[in-house]
Amino acid sequence: MSVDSPSLDPSLRLSSRMAGLRSSAIRDLLTFTARPEVISLAGGLPAVELVPRERIARAAQRALGDPRSVQYGETSGWAPLRETVASRESDAVGRRLDSSEVVITHGSQQALSLLAQVLLDPGDTVVVEEPGYTGALQAFGAAQAALVPVALDADGMDTAVLEEALTEGLRPKVVHTVSNFHNPRGVVLSAQRREHLASLADRYGFWIIEDDPYGELWFDAPAPAPVAAHSDRVLRLSSGSKTLAPALRVGWLHGDRRVCEAVELIKQGTDLCGSSLTQRIATELLDDGAWLDTHLATVRGAYAARSGALIRALESAFGERLSHTEVFGGMFCWIEFTDGCDTTRLLERAIEHDVAFVPGGAFGVAKGHPHAARLCFATYDSAALVEGVDRLRRAYDAHLRTPWSATGH
Amino acid sequence: MSVDSPSLDPSLRLSSRMAGLRSSAIRDLLTFTARPEVISLAGGLPAVELVPRERIARAAQRALGDPRSVQYGETSGWAPLRETVASRESDAVGRRLDSSEVVITHGSQQALSLLAQVLLDPGDTVVVEEPGYTGALQAFGAAQAALVPVALDADGMDTAVLEEALTEGLRPKVVHTVSNFHNPRGVVLSAQRREHLASLADRYGFWIIEDDPYGELWFDAPAPAPVAAHSDRVLRLSSGSKTLAPALRVGWLHGDRRVCEAVELIKQGTDLCGSSLTQRIATELLDDGAWLDTHLATVRGAYAARSGALIRALESAFGERLSHTEVFGGMFCWIEFTDGCDTTRLLERAIEHDVAFVPGGAFGVAKGHPHAARLCFATYDSAALVEGVDRLRRAYDAHLRTPWSATGH
Repeated sequence: MSVDSPSLDPSLRLSSRMAGLRSSAIRDLLTFTARPEVISLAGGLPAVELVPRERIARAAQRALGDPRSVQYGETSGWAPLRETVASRESDAVGRRLDSSEVVITHGSQQALSLLAQVLLDPGDTVVVEEPGYTGALQAFGAAQAALVPVALDADGMDTAVLEEALTEGLRPKVVHTVSNFHNPRGVVLSAQRREHLASLADRYGFWIIEDDPYGELWFDAPAPAPVAAHSDRVLRLSSGSKTLAPALRVGWLHGDRRVCEAVELIKQGTDLCGSSLTQRIATELLDDGAWLDTHLATVRGAYAARSGALIRALESAFGERLSHTEVFGGMFCWIEFTDGCDTTRLLERAIEHDVAFVPGGAFGVAKGHPHAARLCFATYDSAALVEGVDRLRRAYDAHLRTPWSATGH
Repeated sequence: MSVDSPSLDPSLRLSSRMAGLRSSAIRDLLTFTARPEVISLAGGLPAVELVPRERIARAAQRALGDPRSVQYGETSGWAPLRETVASRESDAVGRRLDSSEVVITHGSQQALSLLAQVLLDPGDTVVVEEPGYTGALQAFGAAQAALVPVALDADGMDTAVLEEALTEGLRPKVVHTVSNFHNPRGVVLSAQRREHLASLADRYGFWIIEDDPYGELWFDAPAPAPVAAHSDRVLRLSSGSKTLAPALRVGWLHGDRRVCEAVELIKQGTDLCGSSLTQRIATELLDDGAWLDTHLATVRGAYAARSGALIRALESAFGERLSHTEVFGGMFCWIEFTDGCDTTRLLERAIEHDVAFVPGGAFGVAKGHPHAARLCFATYDSAALVEGVDRLRRAYDAHLRTPWSATGH
């Protein structure tokens, strides 16, 4: 997006924070992938045909039988939904949570944004993962935090590296981690590192934001118990966007009651409240345990099959030229070209071949990840994924022939 | 709400912005009005029985026939809704708007909050109305703006006072006005003052935020053409919350394209996007012109009757002890006791008598408005409003007998 300056009148300038905020070149490129003929492995979009529209429609009809479903709601969320989330999260973390420790947000992205405002002063240090979730980087960046990256490996954030930095004097206010089926790296934080991270929070005094929108999307076995099971310094975020429907815009956070109250105060001025209607729909679906179990089993099975199809196609098409993380759940596969292929350049060719992905650079904090890319396997069925990889291979061949674009991008 | 400090650990402190943010004493008092036996004239709640639930249910079923209704949507809003709003607003302002000049927001409160971030640096001056809309005061306060109040009279913001301040050197970045059926004052900005305000914006170089959630709720005749009809320095906000349903959480802003693009950039990190489902519902209802005209006529008629019932009851119960603004539309009546009655004290008695309102002090910027109150006539039918005023009179009598509460509030 280009932000033109049609007026030179200084009185019509925008705030100084806008000067540092520009839509990225990669985002601009990806706007070209909205064409229907493009197979886009770029978006983090759930499989729309697996979203339970009929179930949502039934819940919507039931909700709309009650006049309160169309009225303003409480800023912290509809009380029964807070109770449902408290109950489900109690099971996950192994201790009884009260609904006053839960705030319903407009997706978990809003929870990130509100927490950044509640916890951070300009210049505060936030430890993020390298590569990191772009929405988190945006939210912490908007709060003018100083971002310190810690590398990920196959077991998630390397907490030994974090501990070394803490020993050397790093004093973060917040450590952010996508603990399950990382976006973009696909990895899972190991059980041992979860305990380690929690103990570091207690020892060095920082908040952990455990950002977990993908945890329910495991293939063969659930991920280890949440980081929040090991410390009360954890603010744990999740969402119905990947399990129920993005359009409900229902996410949540739970944790320290004082933080929840502060989030509520900030949320008042931000948007007053969420939708009473979509919160009721989400509540009905989350409370319908038998249906939900069946539904989640379907989604898990489909995503496992798609992940397998994508990886087999990648291995067949690229062989040793490409490595990928092992995928145990979630929506993303992270690949790295072993032959030095520049994925930002490759994207230009890929778009010409009607396939898209997100180059690793989009997730970089201190590093460029020039040979890496994130592929989403959730959106398309296996046949389309195979076709997408076929197009990617053809784009790759074209890139090898002409690695620099004629247009000078 | 009390924000406890269960931990003395300084590492767990909240951001410094939280220190200045506390839920107000009045808000705390009003939490007691959630009891069903209370007739609350405090909330700005539309009449829930007039919200078209059946029409919404039909639109929901139709929307859910399309898989895209449950997927993530564009940050700036669903394209057909942006077109619908552009078309309706084109009619209102008398020039052709493009949909790229429209952003759909999560209610108009989010538009206020996003605009505050896009336009304001800490310390920038914002002219607000005295008394002012609390949600706007919160949004500008969160951006650490310096608020300069300008008084309202029966014709809305006194633009002669504003011009005098500008002549004396005041240089606001933004002037905020609720142009139609003001919250809390109920008044309408006159046509002459709209032109005057627009000309001041052009002469002195500031943005006008024209905040208009109530404009469609006129009783006998529409309000004058929007301020946005007179200048392109106007960012105009409205919402479906008062005309369709609050639970759709569909508001919008239109104006300068560069500002719209900046709002989109900030909204990405704030909450990614609105609900594809509720935006489709809102679009169908706004596009159904014949139905919408009939629906709005019903709401207008009901609110006019309720407003009349409330005012007659007030005049009958309090006579000369109370003055009120003439009400031509909207949801609010602003009253002032002429006998020095302190409305914050009166509220304590009122709650004991199962009736509630918002004391004028809640809307004060530089003034306390100690004898004033905002009454909402939209939520209840005429019989309940008459009963509410009866209770208010009995609370008033009790207050006269014991003006200071025993609990030392």
